[in-house]
Amino acid sequence: MCNTEFAARRETLLSAMLANSLCIIPAASLVTRSRDTEYLFRQDSYFHYLSGFPEPDAWLVLSNHERYAGSLSVLFCLEKDPLSEIWQGRRCGPQQAQKDFALGQAFGLMELEHKLVDLMDGHQHVYFAQGHNEKAEQLLFTCLQVLRDAPKQSKQAPTSLMDVRVILDEMRLFKSDAEIVLMRHAAAISVEAHKQAMTYAQGGKNEYHLEAQIHHQFAMLGAKNPAYGTIVGSGDNACILHYTENNQSLIEGDLVLIDAGCEYLGYAADITRTFPVSGRFSPQQAQLYQLVLDAQLAAFTYIKPGSNIKLATDQAVKVITQGLLDLGILSGQLGDNIANQSFREFFMHGLGHWLGLDVHDVGNYKIDGLDRAFEPGMVLTIEPGIYIAPDAKVEPQWQGIGIRIEDNLLITEKGYENLTQGAPKSILEIEAFMAQQGQH
Amino acid sequence: MCNTEFAARRETLLSAMLANSLCIIPAASLVTRSRDTEYLFRQDSYFHYLSGFPEPDAWLVLSNHERYAGSLSVLFCLEKDPLSEIWQGRRCGPQQAQKDFALGQAFGLMELEHKLVDLMDGHQHVYFAQGHNEKAEQLLFTCLQVLRDAPKQSKQAPTSLMDVRVILDEMRLFKSDAEIVLMRHAAAISVEAHKQAMTYAQGGKNEYHLEAQIHHQFAMLGAKNPAYGTIVGSGDNACILHYTENNQSLIEGDLVLIDAGCEYLGYAADITRTFPVSGRFSPQQAQLYQLVLDAQLAAFTYIKPGSNIKLATDQAVKVITQGLLDLGILSGQLGDNIANQSFREFFMHGLGHWLGLDVHDVGNYKIDGLDRAFEPGMVLTIEPGIYIAPDAKVEPQWQGIGIRIEDNLLITEKGYENLTQGAPKSILEIEAFMAQQGQH
Amino acid sequence: MCNTEFAARRETLLSAMLANSLCIIPAASLVTRSRDTEYLFRQDSYFHYLSGFPEPDAWLVLSNHERYAGSLSVLFCLEKDPLSEIWQGRRCGPQQAQKDFALGQAFGLMELEHKLVDLMDGHQHVYFAQGHNEKAEQLLFTCLQVLRDAPKQSKQAPTSLMDVRVILDEMRLFKSDAEIVLMRHAAAISVEAHKQAMTYAQGGKNEYHLEAQIHHQFAMLGAKNPAYGTIVGSGDNACILHYTENNQSLIEGDLVLIDAGCEYLGYAADITRTFPVSGRFSPQQAQLYQLVLDAQLAAFTYIKPGSNIKLATDQAVKVITQGLLDLGILSGQLGDNIANQSFREFFMHGLGHWLGLDVHDVGNYKIDGLDRAFEPGMVLTIEPGIYIAPDAKVEPQWQGIGIRIEDNLLITEKGYENLTQGAPKSILEIEAFMAQQGQH
Amino acid sequence: MCNTEFAARRETLLSAMLANSLCIIPAASLVTRSRDTEYLFRQDSYFHYLSGFPEPDAWLVLSNHERYAGSLSVLFCLEKDPLSEIWQGRRCGPQQAQKDFALGQAFGLMELEHKLVDLMDGHQHVYFAQGHNEKAEQLLFTCLQVLRDAPKQSKQAPTSLMDVRVILDEMRLFKSDAEIVLMRHAAAISVEAHKQAMTYAQGGKNEYHLEAQIHHQFAMLGAKNPAYGTIVGSGDNACILHYTENNQSLIEGDLVLIDAGCEYLGYAADITRTFPVSGRFSPQQAQLYQLVLDAQLAAFTYIKPGSNIKLATDQAVKVITQGLLDLGILSGQLGDNIANQSFREFFMHGLGHWLGLDVHDVGNYKIDGLDRAFEPGMVLTIEPGIYIAPDAKVEPQWQGIGIRIEDNLLITEKGYENLTQGAPKSILEIEAFMAQQGQH
Repeated sequence: MCNTEFAARRETLLSAMLANSLCIIPAASLVTRSRDTEYLFRQDSYFHYLSGFPEPDAWLVLSNHERYAGSLSVLFCLEKDPLSEIWQGRRCGPQQAQKDFALGQAFGLMELEHKLVDLMDGHQHVYFAQGHNEKAEQLLFTCLQVLRDAPKQSKQAPTSLMDVRVILDEMRLFKSDAEIVLMRHAAAISVEAHKQAMTYAQGGKNEYHLEAQIHHQFAMLGAKNPAYGTIVGSGDNACILHYTENNQSLIEGDLVLIDAGCEYLGYAADITRTFPVSGRFSPQQAQLYQLVLDAQLAAFTYIKPGSNIKLATDQAVKVITQGLLDLGILSGQLGDNIANQSFREFFMHGLGHWLGLDVHDVGNYKIDGLDRAFEPGMVLTIEPGIYIAPDAKVEPQWQGIGIRIEDNLLITEKGYENLTQGAPKSILEIEAFMAQQGQH
Repeated sequence: MCNTEFAARRETLLSAMLANSLCIIPAASLVTRSRDTEYLFRQDSYFHYLSGFPEPDAWLVLSNHERYAGSLSVLFCLEKDPLSEIWQGRRCGPQQAQKDFALGQAFGLMELEHKLVDLMDGHQHVYFAQGHNEKAEQLLFTCLQVLRDAPKQSKQAPTSLMDVRVILDEMRLFKSDAEIVLMRHAAAISVEAHKQAMTYAQGGKNEYHLEAQIHHQFAMLGAKNPAYGTIVGSGDNACILHYTENNQSLIEGDLVLIDAGCEYLGYAADITRTFPVSGRFSPQQAQLYQLVLDAQLAAFTYIKPGSNIKLATDQAVKVITQGLLDLGILSGQLGDNIANQSFREFFMHGLGHWLGLDVHDVGNYKIDGLDRAFEPGMVLTIEPGIYIAPDAKVEPQWQGIGIRIEDNLLITEKGYENLTQGAPKSILEIEAFMAQQGQH
Repeated sequence: MCNTEFAARRETLLSAMLANSLCIIPAASLVTRSRDTEYLFRQDSYFHYLSGFPEPDAWLVLSNHERYAGSLSVLFCLEKDPLSEIWQGRRCGPQQAQKDFALGQAFGLMELEHKLVDLMDGHQHVYFAQGHNEKAEQLLFTCLQVLRDAPKQSKQAPTSLMDVRVILDEMRLFKSDAEIVLMRHAAAISVEAHKQAMTYAQGGKNEYHLEAQIHHQFAMLGAKNPAYGTIVGSGDNACILHYTENNQSLIEGDLVLIDAGCEYLGYAADITRTFPVSGRFSPQQAQLYQLVLDAQLAAFTYIKPGSNIKLATDQAVKVITQGLLDLGILSGQLGDNIANQSFREFFMHGLGHWLGLDVHDVGNYKIDGLDRAFEPGMVLTIEPGIYIAPDAKVEPQWQGIGIRIEDNLLITEKGYENLTQGAPKSILEIEAFMAQQGQH
Repeated sequence: MCNTEFAARRETLLSAMLANSLCIIPAASLVTRSRDTEYLFRQDSYFHYLSGFPEPDAWLVLSNHERYAGSLSVLFCLEKDPLSEIWQGRRCGPQQAQKDFALGQAFGLMELEHKLVDLMDGHQHVYFAQGHNEKAEQLLFTCLQVLRDAPKQSKQAPTSLMDVRVILDEMRLFKSDAEIVLMRHAAAISVEAHKQAMTYAQGGKNEYHLEAQIHHQFAMLGAKNPAYGTIVGSGDNACILHYTENNQSLIEGDLVLIDAGCEYLGYAADITRTFPVSGRFSPQQAQLYQLVLDAQLAAFTYIKPGSNIKLATDQAVKVITQGLLDLGILSGQLGDNIANQSFREFFMHGLGHWLGLDVHDVGNYKIDGLDRAFEPGMVLTIEPGIYIAPDAKVEPQWQGIGIRIEDNLLITEKGYENLTQGAPKSILEIEAFMAQQGQH
């Protein structure tokens, strides 16, 4: 993504803040995994969104104060240091960062507190992501106290602290063309990974083998990290929504549910497919599977500008409830079942969520208490599911089956673009693909 | 590892503590990666070492108070909760945990603070890993204050706070037979991964492809995580000791340094190999490579009971210094060069480190200021290296070459067992292996 | 002060806040003096100003949300508890407090966090005194996090945090008629105390005796506490601005500077008088004293609506500088001396400060960088001084003399009312009073 | 108190600590009362006990490391600073402090953290008062972490944290001759103050007038502070144990209970007397008063070496219970009443407490669960009381009477010395004193 886009986002934010405001956006920090080893670094989504700067422990400070003609972007980052860089890796350094990331000013971290006090002095408002980053709040409150404690009148501390997410979350909800390119790519990589898992699946293999195949495909295609904990749940493990042990043997005759998406240059994909270990659905599996698929497709018809998630959910719920009645898993009248939400025993989660830099991306779902209308540029998942617990009070043939089908949809002017179309989904497609590619 | 071993470790610890002591060992917690997603959980090494219990947010409390006949083990862990388990995954629950992990008592987390105050009352000493876990210290200090604030004489707060690592680190330094089995397996998996990388390497591929191959091999063989950030440094990237970007194209004619080891059931391997992208060393590369290898082999002769790391280091330094003199990279007399440590420009890190549950494992290196003698059961790495920076003041032919060779050695009665022997190491072996397996 | 006044203040605040705002005002807490004893409780000025409620550890919460028709006042305070009250003293309890203090609702402290979350939900802004009370900020941030962490959309956390002092400090700056009555009384008590000290002073007595006389007079007249640390500085101790040791013997021939004011029902007086231990000024003492007095009286002529502290200060500085030139303590031209602020060696503090619930009361001194105009209802001190250090480079006769004269002035429509007029001030008055009353 | 005594205490502590220990003792800090005013400073009892240094924000660090030949005392205190001293008062400064307080080393506060790390390095144990001073614990833990984080083996962090109070409280329990001199003086001042209150008491005066008389007497005799919140409870206010409002009018016919003691050079007195406002006891008042006095005198017979507080309490309880039976306030058999502790409704507190630098002084009351034997040099209060609540279910004539009589006893070789003998106590003495001195 080019600097112009990051700079444009900063300008949008600066314009959206009240006059005379400062904004502080901290980068993420390295996190200890054990003793002196750390988890692989992941940049803070907000910081990345506004700067593109890839290092930990940096800070972005923005001001729309008139003394800066309404627009100043300052980066604080680790200083260059040959010795440290031999040991810990290369650093950009403030001088280079200012150029490379098109910033107004850049300073070393050593100057952070001192400079931040000066930058903050005279502003009325400070924007930050409240409750999001403890270290940032400590720094902010320290600087504020320095200003407040300054001798009478020599400094002026801001007196209102605003949550920048009110602005930023709304910005992030609408994806730019450049972001859509990245999300299409994340989706495409993830599609390949799901296909690789279908190819490799076989009785006797383990869930972790499928996980390994998926992660390998991600990594070979340039996506070093999954966007979230990969779920490979075979048999009744599929009924645990966030199952991540992924350590059971695959059994011929079982379904396996895989919920996996890569993170590509910061952007998440989030695909779920459920398929038979053997490559062929049993009749019961097929019935339930088709029901979930029908629900998803019914929901899809309501994914378009002006519609909303409530309308789509109602469709999916109607299809699922009717289907469960038809299969004898529920009983009674459709209307009653919908009214008393009897389906919730088997479909207990929401229909979908925003998708972007975070897998459960930011953005309000409601405005003034009402479901907000879809608009072009939003990206969301649609993921109906049916999970019948091993001890559910239903006929034994249905027990222990868990199915979810999840795609990633970009709202367009005319409706939607399914970014994850490429992963085999219909019963026919899956069986054909596995027959052709798989080890069966 | 069976419960008997964990129980035996607890007894050893209970015996090593002063009489009338309580010990608190917290499990690790899940760590946020971004928004509501978390890094894959990794258990705290101490907690795992003493319990084997795999869940986050648990606590192990041990007491050798006479009212418990000198030995009590208590676990606090998440309560069973069907609804939460559908969403977040299965839990063992205290009742099952007590049986499965052979503990004296087990309680739900809801009872933690209350029960801990009661357990702590009347002890004189509290052992914990000081400065290791902020959340644990807060809990401990809260409980202590409750005891101190109790009405006159009704409760007795411990008055000495001891660092349990003084005992535990010494225990962990000596690996049991069961631990050695796991470490051999971690080493074997890592050997396969290095061979896979050698096989796959080729000009035009990227460093991240080799990383992907390695991680895939780890995962397929049951080791979901690398024990530390994998380093794949080609060309002069090899001169950055903790290079983890791993995003440059491999160039025919360059060397590539790979430092990678898996974590298997908690135990780390830590192997470094350096090999030519093309499968064949250039004469200069070969000269430097042989020098590092000679240094390693010279050091190996001092890996045996009674010797110490200082003696091994001296050998490696002597070989490297003499070699650099021979190649004209250093000049002057051997003795002078050793005395003024001129080699440090090119070999700036230590010769090795303890290995175990942590890649840089715990255990004192010195006792009363003197390097401790090797004893059977210790495991350590031996990893000499030569790194000639691209701007080093040497002949251009040497610039930008980085080489490290690292193996994992178990001290035995008679000397050592090289756990990572299987990874091709000599110039001949590497060239033969790559010629046979590689895509060259 | 009657409840109507406290209620009116709350309404003023509610109107001044942005729409849809919550405000949190914590009471002060008891402070440990040593082990299990505490300093005598002093209520938080803001909390007292808005409630009049006298107990520690209470909370006032105000809302102008439309669901409360724009005005809700809630008190949280200690529950009634017969056993605790036998031990720790009587408590009002929420039920009685609601009636006695004319509040909309009142709850026990046990319900604080729970109720506060509910009260806060749905507001856009939270007002509090930022950086003023750590415990209050912890509670506030905890409640905000509870709201933020609530499931999607079920709760709405405020997103802007405003400093309530921007409003409250401006309100407190203008004293109501009821406040002026209290401040006149605080001033009158303090005048009596200064007169008592003049009466008691005598060579051979100690500074602490004068302090004791002053505090006794305060206490007998119903003012249990001094508003600040009483200063009784004889001889060159007078040159230490905040001298509070007060433990030197009084020497005939020395001056003694007493800076003391009581706190009466929360309001401070702040009087300084300087007088001769013996009851008679020496010629040098009289010259310097008259100079300080002339400066004060010159400043007084600028204490009136429309004037400002800068204008008054300029007058005082001109008089002092000319006087020091006349006495040979400064040399050169008046204009030059004023320009280079040479007087600052001898008059190093400001001319005065706001006075009210705090001795250095709240209220901005400048608006948009300019000294604000005086307005009726403001109360301030005017306190010029001259302090010639024992080692100052001046003629020995001047060394070690410190003089300050401080009165409390209420700005009126036509000028000012000197609330502390009654304390003898001119040389004649002081000498006559001491001759008549004193032990000389 | 001379430096020799402070130095001797430090040596005693150094000898009592385990070998190779460091001890950190922080001074107290100034505490904000309101805005920028502070409560009058009170030194930390432990810090004063070991140093005598009177300033806030200082630190005493002791070591018995062999590198210091087993004894090092280091003080950190505010640096000399002429400008700050003009504003905030004189400071001793490290150079002068080292001489004046006979310390091994002294440094300015600016060097605290740096020097403390160096001092701490290489010790095995750190002693401090756990949970006593948050700021000190933060500093300690910061320094420990610096040592722990130092590169392998270059620094050695202490690994056991010991509560120094185990040693210091036992030392403080036994008063030296020099301490006894001070405690006799504190007692004598407090006796004079109680006599002054008796002299001044009169119907129509207010409780706060008596408080003012007492504090004035304290201050005039050189004791600027009461050792605890003075209690002046007339009528049924006497039944609230820690009544400190002290704002009710005295009524002829009521008793008034005064619990007041000064703090003299750090040491507390703690006297309670109860006397009639009018100067003459009513028959009922006299009966109850005599009962409390008899109980106290009975307890006194058990104040001697070898006895203990339990034995003294049993005596007092027997006298009070029998007396309440005789007066018809209790009914039934003596033995039963004692067994079921029926007296606790009217005598609900303990018989006494240790006295010294703190009014409720440090020192264990039990050893291994048993009441410790009295030994010469201990000082304690003996303070039986009878409090009949206004709503107690007894005959109306007894309701609303509260009586406590408290003296301060030094255990001697042969028995005890009553330090507060001088305050009129028997009915005869009180009535005679008030008739002669009082305004009746």
